[in-house]
Amino acid sequence: MSDPKSVITLLHGAGGAYMHNLIKEYFLQLYDGFGEVGLDVLDDAAVINGVVFTTDSYTVRPIFFKGGDIGRLAVSGTVNDIAMMGGDPIALSLAIVMEEGFPKSDLARIVESIKKTAEEANVHIVTGDTKVMEKNALDKIVINTSGIGVASEELKHNFNVLRKNRNVKHEWLVPMNIRDGDKIIVSGTIGDHAIAILSSREGVGFESNIQSDVTPLNKMMKTVLEVGGVADAKDPTRGGLADLLNDWAEKSGLGIYIRESEIPVKEEVSSAIEFLGLDLLELGNEGKAVLAVSPEMARDVLEALRSTPWGKDANIIGEVRKDIEGVILETVIGGKRLVTRPTGDPVPRIC
Amino acid sequence: MSDPKSVITLLHGAGGAYMHNLIKEYFLQLYDGFGEVGLDVLDDAAVINGVVFTTDSYTVRPIFFKGGDIGRLAVSGTVNDIAMMGGDPIALSLAIVMEEGFPKSDLARIVESIKKTAEEANVHIVTGDTKVMEKNALDKIVINTSGIGVASEELKHNFNVLRKNRNVKHEWLVPMNIRDGDKIIVSGTIGDHAIAILSSREGVGFESNIQSDVTPLNKMMKTVLEVGGVADAKDPTRGGLADLLNDWAEKSGLGIYIRESEIPVKEEVSSAIEFLGLDLLELGNEGKAVLAVSPEMARDVLEALRSTPWGKDANIIGEVRKDIEGVILETVIGGKRLVTRPTGDPVPRIC
Repeated sequence: MSDPKSVITLLHGAGGAYMHNLIKEYFLQLYDGFGEVGLDVLDDAAVINGVVFTTDSYTVRPIFFKGGDIGRLAVSGTVNDIAMMGGDPIALSLAIVMEEGFPKSDLARIVESIKKTAEEANVHIVTGDTKVMEKNALDKIVINTSGIGVASEELKHNFNVLRKNRNVKHEWLVPMNIRDGDKIIVSGTIGDHAIAILSSREGVGFESNIQSDVTPLNKMMKTVLEVGGVADAKDPTRGGLADLLNDWAEKSGLGIYIRESEIPVKEEVSSAIEFLGLDLLELGNEGKAVLAVSPEMARDVLEALRSTPWGKDANIIGEVRKDIEGVILETVIGGKRLVTRPTGDPVPRIC
Repeated sequence: MSDPKSVITLLHGAGGAYMHNLIKEYFLQLYDGFGEVGLDVLDDAAVINGVVFTTDSYTVRPIFFKGGDIGRLAVSGTVNDIAMMGGDPIALSLAIVMEEGFPKSDLARIVESIKKTAEEANVHIVTGDTKVMEKNALDKIVINTSGIGVASEELKHNFNVLRKNRNVKHEWLVPMNIRDGDKIIVSGTIGDHAIAILSSREGVGFESNIQSDVTPLNKMMKTVLEVGGVADAKDPTRGGLADLLNDWAEKSGLGIYIRESEIPVKEEVSSAIEFLGLDLLELGNEGKAVLAVSPEMARDVLEALRSTPWGKDANIIGEVRKDIEGVILETVIGGKRLVTRPTGDPVPRIC
């Protein structure tokens, strides 16, 4: 029953190689050539008739965790998918599926958190749906948020700056805009969300005080685009940095070189992953962005990031290089290793 | 554990009084005044900056049923929500949550059906999401589709015609446009979907050859709007005609009078509901529309409906009346009864 050739396994939801193959094999046939950024790009969102459009279902466990809950995650995740395209998120839909017997008090807490997070992101919940499944058919709650956004003035400015440096075909933040020499910037510490989720779970024999980083990043992205010169942005959720950078390498046709010593990571996260034997690069995040920035704008973008509450720990971790293939990590002790797309899932069901 | 005051019950997903109260108590607080048609209207979709936006999660069981499957339902249902606002559906998102162990062959059948139905409706699948839950955390599959659409030329024409007859504030198909004397038209036979679902279930001790009516209705709606004079349209899904008409009565502040003898119903559906003791008015449909039409345009709209493959059995079933309160049904034998919002669910999990 668990042969990944004939049935779906947890690996197919893990944001690594298995999921990408599943998407290519089953869902890519739905692409019919439509959209300025279409289904074929497999990016954070599509762009059609100038509207950025995205969807995500949230199945995180536990539903209340250190630093957040499924409601905050459902708003932040979808807002961020729009923001990572360079879009200005306007409106979200909210579709909730609950099990019979789900406590109304939990629903009230989740809705409260959705309201608060939507206000924080200045995005409007405009439509919704409610379904209930029998107790044995669903565990607790699954939330889907879809979202729409538009191009902002800041995005236009960003591309005016970027165009000084290269030909730009897509005026949205997509991997096809990435060029040799672009700097890779992460907006803050890596791994907080996955470790917070893990330590919020009962019976895993591991505890820490790490809080999830889950937060809407649209205001941070606006500040960055005001500076300009950003070629692409993406949030390292399922699959973490490893999956994200491989995605960029594959779609841009360029190599990426990063330095472990430059990757921001909290002391407690660092000890936790050592203790648990996890790979930092594969851990999911819900309040961080990775940017590919033209080299002459990278310092200014970095400073702008650091001036915001969400990007205080931002750092340049590497660069795009046409002379290498795939993603290469220079380790702290100076060795080099190839970073591949994750095949397993260090912490499942983080979003 | 099943006290509907403190926990969610199946009734809260049933599309009747319990669901409406839940939405009002928990979700309406998310309304912040945004949108031409906002969350407060609780209609099929919202309209924001000229874009129609809607969402639905699909949890139907069985996932393959007589006349359709969860994939066809997920495309049709969301396309119809847009079409019932008078919008022209453009693009859908597709978010799938599966259980571990879900057969890939079933996924392939569902995706195939999604592709076929999307082509039928001329709507594009542009973005998606895939999640996997543990075997004991989800039964089979849940699909969310969200959709966006725009106002069509036909919708403008519809309101040019309607404006001859009344002041129109909303240039979308909403209950606030309904006036005393409007004719109530249903586009075809009622109850097919719910009875098809029921007879597709194992162990219910009931079988019939009724096929679900699940289909995209956007082309039918376009034909109708080309005629003009439609004040509102809505598809009688969960909660059926009973819930839909009560919704209209409540939101328009007018009474609705309908005649049982005029409601189109298939012979086999009629026998089935008699045998099972069900109320036809509470049965869900997935390929039917109910229209409120200005009286002088009603015959033309009816003819236009009947000229389409989806509206062959369309009929005028009653009218809007300011001299009555709520929804009144004139029974076949000439009696009258008040039709209230359903409180139970004759066939749960139909969508």
